[in-house]
Amino acid sequence: MRIGAIEAGGTKFVCGVGDEAGNIEDKASFPTGHPEKTMERAIQYFNGKGVEAIGIGSFGPVDLDPASPTYGYITTTPKPGWAGFPFLDTLRQAFDVPFGWDTDVNAAAFGEAMWGAAKGLGSCLYFTVGTGIGIGVYTEGNLAHGLVHPEGGHMLTRRHVEDHADGQPFPGICPYHGDCLEGMASGPAIEKRWKRKGSELPNDHPAWALEAYYVGQAVTNAILMLSPKKIILGGGVMHQTQLFPMIRTEIQNNLNGYVSAKAISARIDEYIVPPGLGDDAGLCGALALGLKAAGRMQQQKP
Amino acid sequence: MRIGAIEAGGTKFVCGVGDEAGNIEDKASFPTGHPEKTMERAIQYFNGKGVEAIGIGSFGPVDLDPASPTYGYITTTPKPGWAGFPFLDTLRQAFDVPFGWDTDVNAAAFGEAMWGAAKGLGSCLYFTVGTGIGIGVYTEGNLAHGLVHPEGGHMLTRRHVEDHADGQPFPGICPYHGDCLEGMASGPAIEKRWKRKGSELPNDHPAWALEAYYVGQAVTNAILMLSPKKIILGGGVMHQTQLFPMIRTEIQNNLNGYVSAKAISARIDEYIVPPGLGDDAGLCGALALGLKAAGRMQQQKP
Repeated sequence: MRIGAIEAGGTKFVCGVGDEAGNIEDKASFPTGHPEKTMERAIQYFNGKGVEAIGIGSFGPVDLDPASPTYGYITTTPKPGWAGFPFLDTLRQAFDVPFGWDTDVNAAAFGEAMWGAAKGLGSCLYFTVGTGIGIGVYTEGNLAHGLVHPEGGHMLTRRHVEDHADGQPFPGICPYHGDCLEGMASGPAIEKRWKRKGSELPNDHPAWALEAYYVGQAVTNAILMLSPKKIILGGGVMHQTQLFPMIRTEIQNNLNGYVSAKAISARIDEYIVPPGLGDDAGLCGALALGLKAAGRMQQQKP
Repeated sequence: MRIGAIEAGGTKFVCGVGDEAGNIEDKASFPTGHPEKTMERAIQYFNGKGVEAIGIGSFGPVDLDPASPTYGYITTTPKPGWAGFPFLDTLRQAFDVPFGWDTDVNAAAFGEAMWGAAKGLGSCLYFTVGTGIGIGVYTEGNLAHGLVHPEGGHMLTRRHVEDHADGQPFPGICPYHGDCLEGMASGPAIEKRWKRKGSELPNDHPAWALEAYYVGQAVTNAILMLSPKKIILGGGVMHQTQLFPMIRTEIQNNLNGYVSAKAISARIDEYIVPPGLGDDAGLCGALALGLKAAGRMQQQKP
């Protein structure tokens, strides 16, 4: 069985074809431009490939409610042309196959739960820390949707007392919330604060202690709220692997022994981890969504 | 079918008998004392009542992992005698029936999802704000367990800049975290800050603006993390009904239009609500856990 997968990010689209075991056989990527043109390229990619279903993990916010008249739409994004765009319908007109549809971060959580770092656990959280910050939630063998879908990148976090830029407390860059998690800890926030891209800062730069403080705080609150069995930190900023031990220490200090679990007290190196699927987590997750839509994946039970 | 239910709180036990429709036919309560004596009273209550299953929602932390050797135990509570107490095994020795077992707040969330304010939605969060603060999570038709279980009462929240007591910033009362949510907004925190019980403070006392600030912040983060379809605020502190509009306003201000959902922008009075089952939410939830253990309740799907 050949399944199509689309990881639709705000910066680039990745399209691929894979099988029931989660193997990606082929993939291609291109920049996310105007929606009509971008979708045309996606459709061209799948033409003639004989896929039996297509799964999509999309940047958002998106409409995930099957009962809604705008199911499958991108909703309120500031990205030019994409607000109110009928993503799923556009593809349905081109391919008469079952479609899976979810957020990019829920897809990544699903991929990791099926074939990656959280395989067989029935429970994980996936944080992406990059241009934006997003959270995918997989719990008791299901992706969480609810009223809309998780938007945990905008959680309110405590400011670090030493977080200054230009001699003033750094105000954060989120247009909605200023100093929410994304406003303080996304890639663009790092660049705004330090006047250089994070990738240009040395490993011992004070930027990383601040970053670990904010991400560690958000992960702490996620543990307290949901008690996931695995927490996966992906995205461009997390390519700075020196952050992992710093974030783990923040979390242990924050929890201060309250949550009685060896996974946290003794084995946190295995609990807070990078994606097992590496940069393919999102695409593999989209593949898993496609398989599920095709009825070829049993719901995984914890 | 007669089902037994136990709402085991840190202060009092409530035992009851009910039916498949969620009706409580009989109930009795007594103080939570030493575990042997307390369990003896619970066993006496059910003796001769002919219950076919018993559901328990317990104060915690508790062990919810069926594969664990200490499944059904209270784990690390400071409550004298209860740490490491085999709650479930003690009852199993007295009654040869199926048992349901979960946290008190998960039980309350389940009760509200079955027969209360979140009936038919497949998704809700239940906050209890009282002697402690706890969160029950019901999402995609399942209660969330995971590594341990949700402990959201200890989430880290931002301090209010005007939160002072005795001329100093109020340090909070949580023995683990100081100024976490429970440390700042539980009933004992209110009493410690103002030197009077919350129930003795007038409705326009500044205590309530602070309380709404902290609870509103925690609910905001819960919405961003999980996007529940209904949020239910129960517990003794929430008997101060003037808090509901104040908390709703905090949440709308915090989100600042980011989450695009009419439930928040236009119908928040129906989104953030008191328990539909009133003070029976926990006992009804325990009844639902018993019914589920007896195989008489279909898993509710969203």
